[in-house]
Amino acid sequence: MLAVTILGNNSAIPAYGRHPTSQIVTISDDLIMFDCGEGSQIQIMNFKIKRSRINHIFISHLHGDHYFGLIGLLSSFALLGRIQPLSVYGPAPLKEIIELQFKISNTSLPFQLTFHSIEKAGLLLDAKNYTVECFPTQHRIECWGFLVREKKQPRKINMEKVSAYNIDASLFPSLQKGEDFVSANGEIVKNELLTDANTKPKSYAFCADTIYDEGLVPVIKEVDMIYHETTYPASLAEKATERHHSTSKQAASIASLANNKRLLIGHFSAKFEDIGQFEREAKEVFPHTEIALEGTTYLV
Amino acid sequence: MLAVTILGNNSAIPAYGRHPTSQIVTISDDLIMFDCGEGSQIQIMNFKIKRSRINHIFISHLHGDHYFGLIGLLSSFALLGRIQPLSVYGPAPLKEIIELQFKISNTSLPFQLTFHSIEKAGLLLDAKNYTVECFPTQHRIECWGFLVREKKQPRKINMEKVSAYNIDASLFPSLQKGEDFVSANGEIVKNELLTDANTKPKSYAFCADTIYDEGLVPVIKEVDMIYHETTYPASLAEKATERHHSTSKQAASIASLANNKRLLIGHFSAKFEDIGQFEREAKEVFPHTEIALEGTTYLV
Repeated sequence: MLAVTILGNNSAIPAYGRHPTSQIVTISDDLIMFDCGEGSQIQIMNFKIKRSRINHIFISHLHGDHYFGLIGLLSSFALLGRIQPLSVYGPAPLKEIIELQFKISNTSLPFQLTFHSIEKAGLLLDAKNYTVECFPTQHRIECWGFLVREKKQPRKINMEKVSAYNIDASLFPSLQKGEDFVSANGEIVKNELLTDANTKPKSYAFCADTIYDEGLVPVIKEVDMIYHETTYPASLAEKATERHHSTSKQAASIASLANNKRLLIGHFSAKFEDIGQFEREAKEVFPHTEIALEGTTYLV
Repeated sequence: MLAVTILGNNSAIPAYGRHPTSQIVTISDDLIMFDCGEGSQIQIMNFKIKRSRINHIFISHLHGDHYFGLIGLLSSFALLGRIQPLSVYGPAPLKEIIELQFKISNTSLPFQLTFHSIEKAGLLLDAKNYTVECFPTQHRIECWGFLVREKKQPRKINMEKVSAYNIDASLFPSLQKGEDFVSANGEIVKNELLTDANTKPKSYAFCADTIYDEGLVPVIKEVDMIYHETTYPASLAEKATERHHSTSKQAASIASLANNKRLLIGHFSAKFEDIGQFEREAKEVFPHTEIALEGTTYLV
């Protein structure tokens, strides 16, 4: 399963009950976090997310609305007596910010915190059932998007067929890999007769904060679902460019060019109480658009 | 007017809808803030507090639940284009933490932020109508309590009497100071006949995080209302001492010894969903105890 739960969908200033950026991705049995704005740990509790299952946190960039909640979340992990290791991935200075605050409060963590400085595009995490890669986005400061991909799952054994051919279970792993079966008398049974293909691996891209940038298209091409920021409505394209952000229609254009199946939009400017307009505008360009609603989980 | 609005009443970990420590004191026309735990800026919005009127922020100590919300609040002030100056008072390393984060995000503030390192007990702020002093509390790290006192107001002119004696308005300021009136023919009219005493100045002490410490008593003696932490119920006195915190009954003992009129309790451990027990226990020792409820304003 690949699913995305929204903790915060607003841009810099919290407003109208909307919180700064944070998302929880459920994949396989893991929870991973993309960005951690102020109050994310409170949203985690509001939405009854099992915080102890978060083992990897990725921070896109060091504007406060994307990381001010991290130190509080780490502190709470410590106070709760967490012991399993935790990895944090982000721009290098984040390490200094975290370490300074723990030093001053005389905090020693009961768990191993590993900080991975993001330095170049590529693979950040190679887990059993999925990978997380990063890619640069064009913002006012160093900024990274994240791409999570399920790994291809082994073929599924067709139990009825393997019984019919009397195949021993010790051979199942080779069948799952796609190998044919060779019986004692040399008869060959094609793998396709004994196994079924598993579901196609799913993928999700979190495009962080970014100016409208068609350079993103090849990076997120054919990804099943993407999140793309829409800080401003379409009428404020000039303002968006100036602030290195995007509009509703620009986000939709990227999803359309990249041939994604689905687009989530968020990072709404605090100037707008009604966020319906963002959705309406984006849908004109890319119909499979949805607003990233806080507390809602989107299955890829 | 002297009033205290509670933004957060919980200890280290947010729980059951309770937030980390922060209070807004309304005095004269000013708003001042005592501590700023994570999410305080969101609580400010929830409770419709005019954040632009906050000109002084006091941070008791550098455990995260007392200051992790400060950087977010300052960032929002910047994004909102605040121009009036702001003063922050707290332990010296707070300056480094704030400056590092603004440097990394390339933030330049549109308002003047003045950081006052707290170094010794005494006067921190001498405003037109009130003062704020600090006093040390005994906690695991350097920690300060804050005491706000209204200044004595000038005596009120009794308009009926001054008319009867035909006293010119140019003499009112001297009457307000308590001076007697001397007429042209040398007749002396006692001040008490011409003016009335103003209301007695009120005072409020925020006792921050602290172990049970009778050393506080002379410092907050006769203060009208105090806030004293009650991290633990009475049964966990040993744990409280070990963690340099206080229990419900200990807080009440301090208020009783200091002859305060009223006690607010808070900083409840996240282990306790029912905080009614804290109030019941404290009231056995000091009846004028109230739970510091989030979103509630307590008039001194």
